[in-house]
Amino acid sequence: MLKVLVTVPTGEKDLAVLGDYRSRVELVVSQRPDPAAIESTEVFVTFGFDLTGELISRAANLRWVQLFRAGVDMLPLRDLLAREITVTTVSGIHAIPMAEHALAMIIMLAHKFHLFGRRQAQKKWNREAVITEAWEKTVGIIGTGHVGTEVAKKARALGMRSIGLNTRGTPVDGVEKVLSRDRMDQLLRESDFVVVTVPLTPATREFLGEREFTMMKPTASLINLARGEVIDEKALVRALQDGVIGGAGLDVFAAEPLPPDSPLWAMENVIITPHVSGISDRYVERGMAIFAENLAACLTGGRPVRNIVDLQRGY
Amino acid sequence: MLKVLVTVPTGEKDLAVLGDYRSRVELVVSQRPDPAAIESTEVFVTFGFDLTGELISRAANLRWVQLFRAGVDMLPLRDLLAREITVTTVSGIHAIPMAEHALAMIIMLAHKFHLFGRRQAQKKWNREAVITEAWEKTVGIIGTGHVGTEVAKKARALGMRSIGLNTRGTPVDGVEKVLSRDRMDQLLRESDFVVVTVPLTPATREFLGEREFTMMKPTASLINLARGEVIDEKALVRALQDGVIGGAGLDVFAAEPLPPDSPLWAMENVIITPHVSGISDRYVERGMAIFAENLAACLTGGRPVRNIVDLQRGY
Repeated sequence: MLKVLVTVPTGEKDLAVLGDYRSRVELVVSQRPDPAAIESTEVFVTFGFDLTGELISRAANLRWVQLFRAGVDMLPLRDLLAREITVTTVSGIHAIPMAEHALAMIIMLAHKFHLFGRRQAQKKWNREAVITEAWEKTVGIIGTGHVGTEVAKKARALGMRSIGLNTRGTPVDGVEKVLSRDRMDQLLRESDFVVVTVPLTPATREFLGEREFTMMKPTASLINLARGEVIDEKALVRALQDGVIGGAGLDVFAAEPLPPDSPLWAMENVIITPHVSGISDRYVERGMAIFAENLAACLTGGRPVRNIVDLQRGY
Repeated sequence: MLKVLVTVPTGEKDLAVLGDYRSRVELVVSQRPDPAAIESTEVFVTFGFDLTGELISRAANLRWVQLFRAGVDMLPLRDLLAREITVTTVSGIHAIPMAEHALAMIIMLAHKFHLFGRRQAQKKWNREAVITEAWEKTVGIIGTGHVGTEVAKKARALGMRSIGLNTRGTPVDGVEKVLSRDRMDQLLRESDFVVVTVPLTPATREFLGEREFTMMKPTASLINLARGEVIDEKALVRALQDGVIGGAGLDVFAAEPLPPDSPLWAMENVIITPHVSGISDRYVERGMAIFAENLAACLTGGRPVRNIVDLQRGY
């Protein structure tokens, strides 16, 4: 029987999705598994925090990791590659909460909810604000994966135009116009909201910096739901301070937790959320559905099929 | 030539929409019109603040008021009725900004943006929150006019279900299920978000009170973009304090400005905006388009056609 170790907090209700396949595996659900469970496990279902190089060396039988997150940038990729361990993610399950998060940030920035929030905290009734709309504005989406595509779909339903960016400008269903990576300047010039949803890879580190912010409209806002490192944060602070761009909605930061002395906290034109855009009370339910699909494929066809990571490319 | 007085701040660009009809009227644009202009005017284009009983008695030739707002509850209805002055509104032009405002409040309440906003003001990185989604939740819309219908359309695009309420349960395009007024309890029981968009009339004053809040889910939120008087505000405060309902997004209040001693300001589960949901930088542009349509009808057919108010009913 296939030995499966689950360190994702999981209840009976969540496991029901495994159906009949559950009786065909030896399942250990524990957030603090004992050494024997680690040593014998063949399949590891985890949020990733406990997937260290040390654990990999102890888990001599491990051959498949079902990660309950989308990004693999924090994993010991070298150890996984050396052992030829298959890694699958739950990429895609963040699409709905993250797209809702992006959409809220877009409307909040247009309708100045962040200003009114500060005034509420001060019990001040003050209607002064330049209130615009999302309607007929353009959203530029850097990274047209699950999240970017869902942002485009929802934005379109709000009457927005969408421009996407991916490596080769490959058309994507639901995005009106997709540009290749070397045409990012055009996206930056045309967009009222730039939403960043690319994975962090060596190629996307500090992908947007001073030069890119200068290309944006002075009224445009930057929304980053990807990774802090995708942006040159110091250049972003300057661009916001100097009015090079209009505002920002930031869920991720170069250093997390965002240090108390970061100037971003107190900026009037910045909305900060603490890396929560992918969180949802339906997360485990959706992750388990992907694991169930992969487990079925593994038990019937010998290997998982959905969301297999290319460990060389890093996504 | 028809004499038209415009006290809405209007530039040449806004007036261009009148086209050829502009040369067929005698147009005065002034926020402080002289007595002669008031006395002679036949058509009055106004936000409504200056449309007093006194002005009506001075404007002996007035026969049509194009109001640049949707609600007529603050007008001297009796004076207008006595003189048989036609009143048209710009009802409909608030639909887009107000629906965006409602949608932002829905996602903000689900994703706890209001909590994170308070934490940002305190420079506190704290990820603890019960984060839900708009996806697959139900929005109950009390009042299926322009605004309510637009809320339903946009909410549906976000994967929400919608229930509407109007006097006779008349089906409305874009709203999945419409209930009649006497079935409000069902709407309240089934909704995760209750959005109030009815006009204020004698029939809708304190339309929602203690009994209605008790019918709602304890996790549900109330969003009021209509008029403060549509809700029993004291009962709402108690319902929020006692956890009878989960939260609220309020743009309108029984007394405006909301007094500094209102307990609503400091409530963790309440988003307050200062009666701005209908504001947009495209407001005058859209209002002028409606006035242009009515002016054309007036010059060709003798009377305006769009958004004529029934002064007896009050909307």
